[in-house]
Amino acid sequence: MLINCVAYQHGRKLADLPVADISDYVAREDTFVWVALRDATPEELAEMQAEFNLHELAVEDAQRGHQRPKIEEYGDSLFVVVKTVEMKGDELVLGEIDIFVGHNYVLSSRHDNSQGFMGVRARAEREPHLLQHGSGFVLYALMDAAVDRYFPIVEALESELDEIEDLIFTGGSQRNNVERLYDLKRKVTTLRHAVTPLLDTIGKLHGGRVPSMCVDSQAYFRDVHDHLSRINATLDSIRETIGTAIQVNLSLVTLEESEVNKRLAAWAAIFAVLTAFAGIWGMNFKNMPELDWYYGYPMALALMFGTSFILYRRFRRAGWL
Amino acid sequence: MLINCVAYQHGRKLADLPVADISDYVAREDTFVWVALRDATPEELAEMQAEFNLHELAVEDAQRGHQRPKIEEYGDSLFVVVKTVEMKGDELVLGEIDIFVGHNYVLSSRHDNSQGFMGVRARAEREPHLLQHGSGFVLYALMDAAVDRYFPIVEALESELDEIEDLIFTGGSQRNNVERLYDLKRKVTTLRHAVTPLLDTIGKLHGGRVPSMCVDSQAYFRDVHDHLSRINATLDSIRETIGTAIQVNLSLVTLEESEVNKRLAAWAAIFAVLTAFAGIWGMNFKNMPELDWYYGYPMALALMFGTSFILYRRFRRAGWL
Amino acid sequence: MLINCVAYQHGRKLADLPVADISDYVAREDTFVWVALRDATPEELAEMQAEFNLHELAVEDAQRGHQRPKIEEYGDSLFVVVKTVEMKGDELVLGEIDIFVGHNYVLSSRHDNSQGFMGVRARAEREPHLLQHGSGFVLYALMDAAVDRYFPIVEALESELDEIEDLIFTGGSQRNNVERLYDLKRKVTTLRHAVTPLLDTIGKLHGGRVPSMCVDSQAYFRDVHDHLSRINATLDSIRETIGTAIQVNLSLVTLEESEVNKRLAAWAAIFAVLTAFAGIWGMNFKNMPELDWYYGYPMALALMFGTSFILYRRFRRAGWL
Amino acid sequence: MLINCVAYQHGRKLADLPVADISDYVAREDTFVWVALRDATPEELAEMQAEFNLHELAVEDAQRGHQRPKIEEYGDSLFVVVKTVEMKGDELVLGEIDIFVGHNYVLSSRHDNSQGFMGVRARAEREPHLLQHGSGFVLYALMDAAVDRYFPIVEALESELDEIEDLIFTGGSQRNNVERLYDLKRKVTTLRHAVTPLLDTIGKLHGGRVPSMCVDSQAYFRDVHDHLSRINATLDSIRETIGTAIQVNLSLVTLEESEVNKRLAAWAAIFAVLTAFAGIWGMNFKNMPELDWYYGYPMALALMFGTSFILYRRFRRAGWL
Amino acid sequence: MLINCVAYQHGRKLADLPVADISDYVAREDTFVWVALRDATPEELAEMQAEFNLHELAVEDAQRGHQRPKIEEYGDSLFVVVKTVEMKGDELVLGEIDIFVGHNYVLSSRHDNSQGFMGVRARAEREPHLLQHGSGFVLYALMDAAVDRYFPIVEALESELDEIEDLIFTGGSQRNNVERLYDLKRKVTTLRHAVTPLLDTIGKLHGGRVPSMCVDSQAYFRDVHDHLSRINATLDSIRETIGTAIQVNLSLVTLEESEVNKRLAAWAAIFAVLTAFAGIWGMNFKNMPELDWYYGYPMALALMFGTSFILYRRFRRAGWL
Repeated sequence: MLINCVAYQHGRKLADLPVADISDYVAREDTFVWVALRDATPEELAEMQAEFNLHELAVEDAQRGHQRPKIEEYGDSLFVVVKTVEMKGDELVLGEIDIFVGHNYVLSSRHDNSQGFMGVRARAEREPHLLQHGSGFVLYALMDAAVDRYFPIVEALESELDEIEDLIFTGGSQRNNVERLYDLKRKVTTLRHAVTPLLDTIGKLHGGRVPSMCVDSQAYFRDVHDHLSRINATLDSIRETIGTAIQVNLSLVTLEESEVNKRLAAWAAIFAVLTAFAGIWGMNFKNMPELDWYYGYPMALALMFGTSFILYRRFRRAGWL
Repeated sequence: MLINCVAYQHGRKLADLPVADISDYVAREDTFVWVALRDATPEELAEMQAEFNLHELAVEDAQRGHQRPKIEEYGDSLFVVVKTVEMKGDELVLGEIDIFVGHNYVLSSRHDNSQGFMGVRARAEREPHLLQHGSGFVLYALMDAAVDRYFPIVEALESELDEIEDLIFTGGSQRNNVERLYDLKRKVTTLRHAVTPLLDTIGKLHGGRVPSMCVDSQAYFRDVHDHLSRINATLDSIRETIGTAIQVNLSLVTLEESEVNKRLAAWAAIFAVLTAFAGIWGMNFKNMPELDWYYGYPMALALMFGTSFILYRRFRRAGWL
Repeated sequence: MLINCVAYQHGRKLADLPVADISDYVAREDTFVWVALRDATPEELAEMQAEFNLHELAVEDAQRGHQRPKIEEYGDSLFVVVKTVEMKGDELVLGEIDIFVGHNYVLSSRHDNSQGFMGVRARAEREPHLLQHGSGFVLYALMDAAVDRYFPIVEALESELDEIEDLIFTGGSQRNNVERLYDLKRKVTTLRHAVTPLLDTIGKLHGGRVPSMCVDSQAYFRDVHDHLSRINATLDSIRETIGTAIQVNLSLVTLEESEVNKRLAAWAAIFAVLTAFAGIWGMNFKNMPELDWYYGYPMALALMFGTSFILYRRFRRAGWL
Repeated sequence: MLINCVAYQHGRKLADLPVADISDYVAREDTFVWVALRDATPEELAEMQAEFNLHELAVEDAQRGHQRPKIEEYGDSLFVVVKTVEMKGDELVLGEIDIFVGHNYVLSSRHDNSQGFMGVRARAEREPHLLQHGSGFVLYALMDAAVDRYFPIVEALESELDEIEDLIFTGGSQRNNVERLYDLKRKVTTLRHAVTPLLDTIGKLHGGRVPSMCVDSQAYFRDVHDHLSRINATLDSIRETIGTAIQVNLSLVTLEESEVNKRLAAWAAIFAVLTAFAGIWGMNFKNMPELDWYYGYPMALALMFGTSFILYRRFRRAGWL
Repeated sequence: MLINCVAYQHGRKLADLPVADISDYVAREDTFVWVALRDATPEELAEMQAEFNLHELAVEDAQRGHQRPKIEEYGDSLFVVVKTVEMKGDELVLGEIDIFVGHNYVLSSRHDNSQGFMGVRARAEREPHLLQHGSGFVLYALMDAAVDRYFPIVEALESELDEIEDLIFTGGSQRNNVERLYDLKRKVTTLRHAVTPLLDTIGKLHGGRVPSMCVDSQAYFRDVHDHLSRINATLDSIRETIGTAIQVNLSLVTLEESEVNKRLAAWAAIFAVLTAFAGIWGMNFKNMPELDWYYGYPMALALMFGTSFILYRRFRRAGWL
């Protein structure tokens, strides 16, 4: 679905264009065209391919979706794929924004993403001195918007981890902890797939040999790079902490088992002694003098419970009970 | 076994050739020859070596099979090995396609692979404007076809993992889970051996100093590279997830053991109390007044089962039962 | 809050400046201005941006805080972020010092850091021959001061680890050990986030192509690099040791459980024998001749305790008791 | 011990030389000398050093043995160390072949290796067109022979792993499995020490700046490189699989323990019920009417075994028995 | 403390110098001065700094000690830190030798090291043709001596590991094994801190752009590099083996626990049967005909022990006893 199709000149909006006029405006020296699509049909993409003269392989990628984030040069144009990430309930939903950038055009096409990037256009139109930098700046603004939306997700994962940690040590439901850790790990892995490949390639847009339309905006791309590095570092440390937390949880489970075993052993010992005494005096030998004593029974009980109590105290002191 | 041997000119089929004529056509400026072999005998390879003037070491590799995927330059020709992967029942079967590429020839030789690459030739012949790019494009088409067949395999591994995960947490047969995880790990390792070495070397075919017959098709080779990266990233995350899943499974087994131990301990305690009481009133002391009480027996039973019930409730509340 | 704003000439203090005069002094050839801010407000930063002509993105970063440590070049000026680390009770508190460096100015702005860097200025003013090196040297002095404050923290972590290790093997509270190890691991991770990114980028300030104001102070920046490497290596080995310690702790818990199990098994066996004998002689068969023997009871007791004692000795020897 | 000392011209054997004549032949333009030593004494090496004018450090290394595999250039000569690997019973035995290569000589000296490289010389003499390439080709032939002998070893390790895997899941002796896995891991480590350093340095002999005597044989050295890569990849995957196998084995042991615990718990429960009933009817209360019933005993037995049977069935269904 | 201060000319000792004359000799073209200090005081270092004109930062490092191993260039002089390692009882003691090297001087200063490097000087003086290479060769000789002393330490660690391995599988004290493995791991970590940073930087002294006084001795520095690589590889494999050994030890402990559990379960079952029988015949029902049989008792005993024996045999066969 076409969302916008606007031509800009000197950083200011010139006109909303019909799709068929795009190629005319793209041919002009001092204007640039910014088109936004959403869940584009193959026909729309084919039309855009014709208007902007896009490379076949890039269009194929945009059609198929489910690409890795990447920045590819086709001659003097760029094809950029950035993953968008949204939380739907407890699930991470990965979408995608595919951006075609030439000297005087930007075509963005997003899939499976509910939020949209209208705010980016609005802000850009409010700041003509920046929009004047042209298509490179628009690319930056779109990437920046997509990447900035990773931060709340990462923070949500961090606080999920904090919560689980508290439960691990205060002794919440361990089965549940393990399941949540596992689930968290999967989310981190998903998010890393959105972040890492982009981090690996975004260096192309600042520093060394930079595509010409991005030269003016290098400092901005470095800023995006920096954000990605921060996210990546945080994901790495969450990932490592999860590993340790799983290990630690196992240690604590084993420890608890060991404590349960000790209590079991202690009580088993106490009752085994009681039962052994009772067994002895329950034997049917004719000649067992103590059975005939008047105070035999209370003395026996005293001996039995006395012994049990001594055992109990010793186990208590040894920390088994 | 020879499958095809065809000469092409300007992207169109010229003629099916007898093997002996190959060297004549290869010598012509504007034609190229595309030969396909299957499970080639040493004699067939020797014949091809003579016709195409192939390098001895490359031919040896093709004969022996079981090579690592690789892209080697011998002077101005290329020798490419790509692994093919097929699912036979529950087993991964690795095959191999060895491709010799010169300026005006492509010789492909496949082993242990049931599917074949006839479709590649058919499609290429339908698109003369692409076939016109020559041998480099044919190389791309073959590699692309082989790599695209990895995707369904990878997806099968991913859904296998999903299934095992469900079983782990819903408490399916844990012994079976471990075995399946182990088996899955092995498959991932096998597949990685097909993917990683190719990923490491395919950079030679786009970007920097590229063999001359591949220069025109660079963007296409980058596309294959991109596919390989995606597969590799997915395999990496499956591999990591398997590791975590094994750990988590161990945690859950230990946890279950710990729970079983608690139940064992609780029931043992309850019955130990019952048995201790019964033991005491089973002693043969003469003077045990309660034995003579009229309601002694029911009171004893009440005391025994009452105590048991109290214990039961306490264990229940503590989550041991 | 503004802390200092001083102009220097030939390494000596010239005058305390009002903020409005900064741009005049910065324009002079042979002076440089060194301004220090603390928990700067957006207004103060905006004022500084105007006076020093700072890059918008750098100022934004300084305003937001919570940056990764980094060294960025904006034209011929530098923007440096260094994390400060303090121990508050048992918690690590990360602060930040943002440093803008130009040819004849240094602007430092610190957040969430209680100690301050007044000592750096005092020492620099006492050593005019060093201060003469200009803004590069001031940058070094600030970074050096921040990095040197990592050392006592790292040592505290090391001795914490030593303490835990002693407890692990002398058999202190294992639950507590695990919790402390986990907590230590988190601190190391936090500290690594302060150290590693800085270590990765500080190479820019010595060795290869170095920003012009830092050329004279290269050996000094290498020294900071060296300190960071030492801290990083120590953190790495703490991290690795923690991993091993968690594993070892698990081994020891399992081992102790196994020992408890053996003792439980041994005592259970001894009492089972006692109880079995007592059970036998407690049976109500009419014709059990030994029950009528005069010494039947003492013989029975002797047999029971004798057997128990033999079992006890054998378990003792096998190391089960 | 001297094994051979032969001069070659145009790829054909010229003469067996006495050691003292070596330096004369080495000085000739169009001949080359190929000497083979075995477990050389210091005196023999000193003699060779004098005849070939070898570098002191290289000779020292050859004397001491136990070097890491390496390829070192001394001026325009090469010193190459390759590890040989043999299976003696169940043990891996590492030997070494040290090769000194100059423009017109090859000196090989092997230690702790029973097989020898006579076959290499024989084959080389049968193929004069290859031997004509000179000393570089001989170096290749020796390295290739040594590396090819790794393959059967690696296959033996692989099938050992397969065997252990079968035992792990069919439930063979787990103690033995662990011991075999550990032993296998050590062998893999040993073999890796032979392979990895060579793999890291063999790139020097093909591709970039290659020593002049190896230029003609570059494709051959790349072939050796390829073999080493394959071996290395296989060793890596064995290593990783061993790690997983140890983990999986632990999981299975824990699982089995958990199953044993369940059975123990189930039987304990059944007998505890039996014993509790028997205990109750073994009490000596005067007034226990059921004791006087005519069918009291069989009813009691029926109740006891009935209850036991019901418990048994329930445990059976729950998979505990 | 000053140990030696000697001037050399053409590889031969010229004179023992008083410290004050050093700067005169250093100024001469064809001599070089070699000074050795031990646990130098700040005053001694200050004196040396003045005589040799050493860089302030290098002297500071030498004063503070506890540096990482490193090789730093200050203009055309070098500052090298090498860790010395000694075994004191069961403890690794790290010392340090700091070496300042200029074109015609070497100043070495060692801390916390009992052995000293007198032998290096003695050997160098005996070999004037080597000493003639000048200060670079002396640097090599000192580094070589320090690095060669790592070998016996590494061998001691290896044989310690071998010993522990034997104990693990023959079933020695497992608690002790874990403790020793942990201790060994710490030693390896300590030693790695001495080796790895030096390995990373020693490449500066051979191969590429080498400081001028080391150019002649490049092959020698490569030899030291090679030794360090060997030590590093050995340490790596010890480290990895320790990790596996800890895992394996845990597996064996769990396995043993599982075996103990099985024996416990088996004996518990046997005695539970015995006790159940005894309990039944100990009941007080009036009408229990078998109690009145003449051979009731022996038949009961026969039944009880017969059943026990059958159980015993079955457990035996199942490997539980």
